[in-house]
Amino acid sequence: MKKVVTFGEVMLRLSPPGFARLVQTTTLDVNFGGGEANVAAGLAYLGVPAQHVTRFPDNDWGYAAAAAYRRYGVDTSRIVFGGDRIGTYYIEQGSMMRASKVLYDRFDSAFAHLIPAEFDWEEILNGAGWFHWTGITPAISEPAAEACLQAIQTANRLGVTVSADVNYRRNLWRWGKTVQEVMPELVAGCDVVVCGKGDAEDIFGIVPDKSLVKSSFVSSAQQVMERFPRIKKVLTTKRGSVSASHNTLSATLYDGTHHLKTITHEMVPMVDRIGGGDAFMAGFIYGTQAYGDDQQALDFAVAASALKHSIEGDFNLVSIAEIETVMKGDASGKLSR
Amino acid sequence: MKKVVTFGEVMLRLSPPGFARLVQTTTLDVNFGGGEANVAAGLAYLGVPAQHVTRFPDNDWGYAAAAAYRRYGVDTSRIVFGGDRIGTYYIEQGSMMRASKVLYDRFDSAFAHLIPAEFDWEEILNGAGWFHWTGITPAISEPAAEACLQAIQTANRLGVTVSADVNYRRNLWRWGKTVQEVMPELVAGCDVVVCGKGDAEDIFGIVPDKSLVKSSFVSSAQQVMERFPRIKKVLTTKRGSVSASHNTLSATLYDGTHHLKTITHEMVPMVDRIGGGDAFMAGFIYGTQAYGDDQQALDFAVAASALKHSIEGDFNLVSIAEIETVMKGDASGKLSR
Amino acid sequence: MKKVVTFGEVMLRLSPPGFARLVQTTTLDVNFGGGEANVAAGLAYLGVPAQHVTRFPDNDWGYAAAAAYRRYGVDTSRIVFGGDRIGTYYIEQGSMMRASKVLYDRFDSAFAHLIPAEFDWEEILNGAGWFHWTGITPAISEPAAEACLQAIQTANRLGVTVSADVNYRRNLWRWGKTVQEVMPELVAGCDVVVCGKGDAEDIFGIVPDKSLVKSSFVSSAQQVMERFPRIKKVLTTKRGSVSASHNTLSATLYDGTHHLKTITHEMVPMVDRIGGGDAFMAGFIYGTQAYGDDQQALDFAVAASALKHSIEGDFNLVSIAEIETVMKGDASGKLSR
Amino acid sequence: MKKVVTFGEVMLRLSPPGFARLVQTTTLDVNFGGGEANVAAGLAYLGVPAQHVTRFPDNDWGYAAAAAYRRYGVDTSRIVFGGDRIGTYYIEQGSMMRASKVLYDRFDSAFAHLIPAEFDWEEILNGAGWFHWTGITPAISEPAAEACLQAIQTANRLGVTVSADVNYRRNLWRWGKTVQEVMPELVAGCDVVVCGKGDAEDIFGIVPDKSLVKSSFVSSAQQVMERFPRIKKVLTTKRGSVSASHNTLSATLYDGTHHLKTITHEMVPMVDRIGGGDAFMAGFIYGTQAYGDDQQALDFAVAASALKHSIEGDFNLVSIAEIETVMKGDASGKLSR
Amino acid sequence: MKKVVTFGEVMLRLSPPGFARLVQTTTLDVNFGGGEANVAAGLAYLGVPAQHVTRFPDNDWGYAAAAAYRRYGVDTSRIVFGGDRIGTYYIEQGSMMRASKVLYDRFDSAFAHLIPAEFDWEEILNGAGWFHWTGITPAISEPAAEACLQAIQTANRLGVTVSADVNYRRNLWRWGKTVQEVMPELVAGCDVVVCGKGDAEDIFGIVPDKSLVKSSFVSSAQQVMERFPRIKKVLTTKRGSVSASHNTLSATLYDGTHHLKTITHEMVPMVDRIGGGDAFMAGFIYGTQAYGDDQQALDFAVAASALKHSIEGDFNLVSIAEIETVMKGDASGKLSR
Amino acid sequence: MKKVVTFGEVMLRLSPPGFARLVQTTTLDVNFGGGEANVAAGLAYLGVPAQHVTRFPDNDWGYAAAAAYRRYGVDTSRIVFGGDRIGTYYIEQGSMMRASKVLYDRFDSAFAHLIPAEFDWEEILNGAGWFHWTGITPAISEPAAEACLQAIQTANRLGVTVSADVNYRRNLWRWGKTVQEVMPELVAGCDVVVCGKGDAEDIFGIVPDKSLVKSSFVSSAQQVMERFPRIKKVLTTKRGSVSASHNTLSATLYDGTHHLKTITHEMVPMVDRIGGGDAFMAGFIYGTQAYGDDQQALDFAVAASALKHSIEGDFNLVSIAEIETVMKGDASGKLSR
Repeated sequence: MKKVVTFGEVMLRLSPPGFARLVQTTTLDVNFGGGEANVAAGLAYLGVPAQHVTRFPDNDWGYAAAAAYRRYGVDTSRIVFGGDRIGTYYIEQGSMMRASKVLYDRFDSAFAHLIPAEFDWEEILNGAGWFHWTGITPAISEPAAEACLQAIQTANRLGVTVSADVNYRRNLWRWGKTVQEVMPELVAGCDVVVCGKGDAEDIFGIVPDKSLVKSSFVSSAQQVMERFPRIKKVLTTKRGSVSASHNTLSATLYDGTHHLKTITHEMVPMVDRIGGGDAFMAGFIYGTQAYGDDQQALDFAVAASALKHSIEGDFNLVSIAEIETVMKGDASGKLSR
Repeated sequence: MKKVVTFGEVMLRLSPPGFARLVQTTTLDVNFGGGEANVAAGLAYLGVPAQHVTRFPDNDWGYAAAAAYRRYGVDTSRIVFGGDRIGTYYIEQGSMMRASKVLYDRFDSAFAHLIPAEFDWEEILNGAGWFHWTGITPAISEPAAEACLQAIQTANRLGVTVSADVNYRRNLWRWGKTVQEVMPELVAGCDVVVCGKGDAEDIFGIVPDKSLVKSSFVSSAQQVMERFPRIKKVLTTKRGSVSASHNTLSATLYDGTHHLKTITHEMVPMVDRIGGGDAFMAGFIYGTQAYGDDQQALDFAVAASALKHSIEGDFNLVSIAEIETVMKGDASGKLSR
Repeated sequence: MKKVVTFGEVMLRLSPPGFARLVQTTTLDVNFGGGEANVAAGLAYLGVPAQHVTRFPDNDWGYAAAAAYRRYGVDTSRIVFGGDRIGTYYIEQGSMMRASKVLYDRFDSAFAHLIPAEFDWEEILNGAGWFHWTGITPAISEPAAEACLQAIQTANRLGVTVSADVNYRRNLWRWGKTVQEVMPELVAGCDVVVCGKGDAEDIFGIVPDKSLVKSSFVSSAQQVMERFPRIKKVLTTKRGSVSASHNTLSATLYDGTHHLKTITHEMVPMVDRIGGGDAFMAGFIYGTQAYGDDQQALDFAVAASALKHSIEGDFNLVSIAEIETVMKGDASGKLSR
Repeated sequence: MKKVVTFGEVMLRLSPPGFARLVQTTTLDVNFGGGEANVAAGLAYLGVPAQHVTRFPDNDWGYAAAAAYRRYGVDTSRIVFGGDRIGTYYIEQGSMMRASKVLYDRFDSAFAHLIPAEFDWEEILNGAGWFHWTGITPAISEPAAEACLQAIQTANRLGVTVSADVNYRRNLWRWGKTVQEVMPELVAGCDVVVCGKGDAEDIFGIVPDKSLVKSSFVSSAQQVMERFPRIKKVLTTKRGSVSASHNTLSATLYDGTHHLKTITHEMVPMVDRIGGGDAFMAGFIYGTQAYGDDQQALDFAVAASALKHSIEGDFNLVSIAEIETVMKGDASGKLSR
Repeated sequence: MKKVVTFGEVMLRLSPPGFARLVQTTTLDVNFGGGEANVAAGLAYLGVPAQHVTRFPDNDWGYAAAAAYRRYGVDTSRIVFGGDRIGTYYIEQGSMMRASKVLYDRFDSAFAHLIPAEFDWEEILNGAGWFHWTGITPAISEPAAEACLQAIQTANRLGVTVSADVNYRRNLWRWGKTVQEVMPELVAGCDVVVCGKGDAEDIFGIVPDKSLVKSSFVSSAQQVMERFPRIKKVLTTKRGSVSASHNTLSATLYDGTHHLKTITHEMVPMVDRIGGGDAFMAGFIYGTQAYGDDQQALDFAVAASALKHSIEGDFNLVSIAEIETVMKGDASGKLSR
Repeated sequence: MKKVVTFGEVMLRLSPPGFARLVQTTTLDVNFGGGEANVAAGLAYLGVPAQHVTRFPDNDWGYAAAAAYRRYGVDTSRIVFGGDRIGTYYIEQGSMMRASKVLYDRFDSAFAHLIPAEFDWEEILNGAGWFHWTGITPAISEPAAEACLQAIQTANRLGVTVSADVNYRRNLWRWGKTVQEVMPELVAGCDVVVCGKGDAEDIFGIVPDKSLVKSSFVSSAQQVMERFPRIKKVLTTKRGSVSASHNTLSATLYDGTHHLKTITHEMVPMVDRIGGGDAFMAGFIYGTQAYGDDQQALDFAVAASALKHSIEGDFNLVSIAEIETVMKGDASGKLSR
């Protein structure tokens, strides 16, 4: 496969061990994570050439963050070093009815203060087959939004497939413009989007019309595709939440004609739910190219995502064989010797 | 709210990490716990002024124990230092059908050898709104029982509400008198008691008479209230045990007229079940004052107790908002960002 | 009870903490395990005199391995020291649909290169009541198979009961002869065998004939007993795999006349599933002698095995009282104070 | 003794275990520290009533920080909650010739954005005997400098002794004014200052005149006292650095007439050197009141500081008896049973 | 060599990791230790048959304690199980001038309440070559002193060599009789004693007479040997304390004629100083039999003791080869591949 | 600088935490190391393009090993995957007079069974400036020696500088030929060699002739250079061993004319001494190109090596600035803020 390029912020992720709360913990486990970079890590682990583009502070945390992705085979050679600090987030793992809880400390990060000219997208995307971004990037700062737009436009010009997880985060978007003002121009350059009904309504004001189509997801996706004619596939996952320890997961896709669905995976007891959506995206990028079949790609993607919930940290460290076992419906987890 | 005062022994709690057994472990996690002090910690974490009164050895473990409660905002200024040792207990966490197991080493503790005159209850209870004790305190030693009685009588004189968790522990009560001889005088000074059917029978010889009332709990509670006319509310929790990892929890209350019940909470997989009853009591003391409604207080108390089973250590480190979410029936544990 | 002697390889077992994968872990927990030695450890923990015979390298890992068994009361005085290395295996703990995964590095171990003459079976088995081996031992190397045969023949001569878990492992058996060539002579000396339908077919080519008996296990067991007339009992466990975190377990036994079965135990969430079969065998050896009744022995054995899944490491560190509680159908795991 | 009040920022301190570097660590130990708050903690541990005043974010890290000080008896009742984030610093422990390394991430902290009116100094300092601040506080932000000035002026008005560790940090002071512009007015309100020659030159442009006095420290101190007539004592510590593992420490004081010195303590191998200066200050505040003798106070202070280097974390958790042993010249560290 | 039997209390030893203090630690490392049992462990590790006799509570800590010694080859078959609790001690590791600190919680232990008749010394000492006890045993309780006397008298009758480390601990001896009343009868049965000048004066009132012999140790030892004519060798170690991290160690012996000395070992940085004296005793018992030469035995013993200070826990886990390297004066610690 | 290529085995390195011994440890820290690969890691950390060539098993340990080097920027794209196992070594950290101890389990590794044709040296060395190997590689197996020779010959043909650390390990060289038979042909292709007197004598039978030159190192180096005329520089380090915790280090170089020496560095207390020689080599390769001056290169190299002893694991994670500070004689380790 051709190189996949991702662009977005990476944060230092600090989490108490086990089920401890921040207020009581005496140690924190160190990981790194970012919605787009996790896609790169997931793809690299599957053997796909993947490159992540971001900006890190020129200090030990910047080097450690790059090292964390390079370790799993992500090409980090285009990362820019500059700025003061790395965005940080803290996560407590919940259990039973107690929710996991994320506390962000990400403002004024090296990424937020990037300079668009630091990234030469012609050169970066040269030879790439796919470019992926998420709705978190333009939410962070004006230059981040600007650089993202330049990347998308360059990808379009070079014939590189563009995907996005539109992912609206209410507590970001503090830099002056609203999500509604910024996103349309960016999404217009996409070929594939992860966009559920809620995000479509929040970002684009699209409301499903159940009088026309039975499935509200299909109704929403149809309107998204009408508004943004470049988009060929709209997909999303559906998470059920029995408790903080027990979720269910399925996925669905609309391609303008067909409405595909997957089985529902039971995830209990979950080990780490962060990065599940990113694992889904990595799985779909891999699957769509490996199988040349949307149903299989979707089945692979959701199986990959389900498995991610059994892995500590943000990255989906599972093999193709392990994903295919689950994709084929075997969730028995029988000991492998 | 006015200050809540609790009185009772605090033990050093040592537990192997994970699911290890004492016989195989190479490290022990350090916590402190005591049925009454845990109520104070739970209340302080909810923002209620709370003070714990006890006796600690004048050594590093005594200081560490006081520090552990002070850390979460409990007023430790009335703790007496003296005596030789801190009572200690070891707890192994069970799983599946293997029970958690507690091993006590609590005899001859600083608390057991307290001198009643060390506590000036007039001064301690001055300005307080609530005094809480449990049936473990009089079980420990004669002076402990004596000090408890003085506290209750002072509280009655000062118009401070008195609550007790009667909590009969068969393997204590070695100091000469029986539970049946000692408890009635103490319970007579209570306004609110946690007292299930089993405890009512063991301690007071009260047997439910199902010919009169359908609910054996109500029958038992009625007789308790007849015997001790000061008591206005009898309440108790009901724990179902599917396995060491999976319990259920509900609560019930009788106020002489109404029989209130809560929903049943599923608790799986439990993180730490020690302190569940104390969290219930703290929740009820808070709820009864915050809501001025017994049903809401009971719902809050049992939700608080259920959540405690997701928290490591003896203290219920959950917020009012987290408890109210569960109290309203949302057990989905959805990620909070 | 008389001494039980076991013979087989012990490996250094290294496992990442929690649910980490090998590729990401920074520490490994150290344990030791071997199918036969685990039976000895399980028996010693129940108070039965047990001795394990093996060969360890004359280095720190050899001493540490012997120490690990001696710690729990296994007689290690007959262990031979020689050779270069200890066999090693790595195990990742799975969760949900992700399987636990074992990676072996066991070739050319001290045990594989044992010299049969190093073991004086007359002396070792003198005074013993039971000898236990598994199908892993002859699979390792020619001298291991040879020593195993000598042990069995000596046991037969001395009137010592012989049991085997036939346990066919496809990825062993690399030393020149096939399992089909080697096992019959060894099994012929057994009084009790753990041998499910699958193993019977793989090793002896025995196919259940459902036209004769309804139970395919009984059909298989009957044929095994016809082929090897010394065998008086054939037994096996049945494991259901809901997920890597949730298994079920029951057992069955055929004695030539009766077909005994146990209840099915739910095991969720499992702590460590390695050594479950060995705990079953230890439980049966104990139970058959303690109760003098096959149904009780089988119930005890499967309860012991189920409980093992709650214990970290290879050894079944549970008491007779804990097993008997489960054996009697109480899986509630109620807190033991 | 009367209450000692301290004012300044507290940071979340995250450090890799052992001698690991940030770039390689997988866990971080959690502590909290701040130059002024550490003085309060040190005093509280010695039994002196101590209160710390600061501003924390209204989130879990703010609560955890307050809890960390309350744990050791510091009065945290006047801490203000508001703002976005807690300042954070990372520290790697060096060894041999490799220096320990601090990485700050403290800008835009809750403290930096404090509002002077949030602190009612009349009320806070009511009944206090001593107020302590450091040169880090005015370096952080304009409102921090302003609040500090108000505190000093109030203390002067109320007759509360004021001490300062002038502590010039080149990489702070980014808010608009220079150290030279701001500090004189603050120092003018001090009774006691820790101010070595270097700081005197950097902050006040004072250059020792060795033609007048032999000791350049005395020359510097004389000039400081001339410029700021309220100051009655100038003191400082002298650290020798054999290696990152081995330092030496002594102290000196000038009171306008006498030049006092202490013995030099050998500190090897050091456990944690952060907080050494704060332990010195706490020791001096205690000693000056306990002994009523500057030489003894200085000896106590430097012994306390030396001992701090053996304690993990920012706080000096040593007893008066332990300090007095070292103060009297016994550095043998003989086992205490 | 013939079996060495030791008799005395074993305690649960709990210690904070690294240099943490009890008041701040969140975990404790679990070890077991006892002055006499440590001698047995040290000997067993050198390959000498060694048996420890004691009394443990019949609970998990009793089993774990026995397991800890059995692990290293100590024969635990004569340990009696009974009584309520295991004695416990807590140890903080000091550094630099901060002393390590031990906190005991050992009263009313299973050992203190032993019943002399539980030990059949005829049978235990049958076939033994050496019996070792220390002055801690008779200090614990009257029955402990009584059992110790019976053991010594039986050993004398059976011709078993008896050694003692007289080891006077001021804060024990609370059971009614003084050390001066009890020890003479016990020491009278000894062949070898570890007894420095201080202990000789404290226990026997023996004051060195420097007018007669230059060495005060020799003078003291001569008087000890006159008083107790069975004693053939008096020996002791001399510890210098540069700091809590740096000690020196040498030893000396008087046999009635010769005064032997060893070189002085530098011990820096020490890892764990508990058990140093026990390692010395084990080394001397081994050396005296292995070399048949007191100078070599003494050199071996002090080298063994010095090496113990590099080993975590109470037991001296070093090989004969490692000890002999140091004994020959090679303290270079060159990497061994 | 041009790419540096290294070739050799990488082993899984497992070590007990702290100062624990293998026989007592319950966890092992995971690192990877190899004499040549560590040079690549050290160079990559300094910013020099570095590539390591080796053969790993096609399993999780092979992937983890590659990831460990990739993490720090080493190009791992030419690593071959095949064979059964990764070589493993265990290391105990010594202290005081107790030596650190290495236990190898490296036979039959994936590297030992490499196939020379798997490595296309023309392609690998294309564009490289330097090739480095050590005497461990040809000691492992015949194909390893053969591949090494092909690499050297290709490097010579392509004009790539070749360096070697001749490093004779007595307990390797088991594959049939002796070090004396194999090494001359390999060393003949070198431009720079690390070769002390001992190695020169063991491998080449070269004995210093002190009648000709005062320095025995120079005499040895002269003879080495006469025998192998391609060699332009012979260098070596000199380690003094005060104890396992305290070493000294200096270096010396002979270039045919000049005899250069460095200062001696004190290393106490050492954190981890593995990889010190590799850090020296990396430092020299960097320094010789960065400074163009052998004295500076040597000073840099030995400073880098000294600093390595403060870093956990095999890799020298120190910056150029940190090395240059030490290189200039500043060993004070002053806190860097």
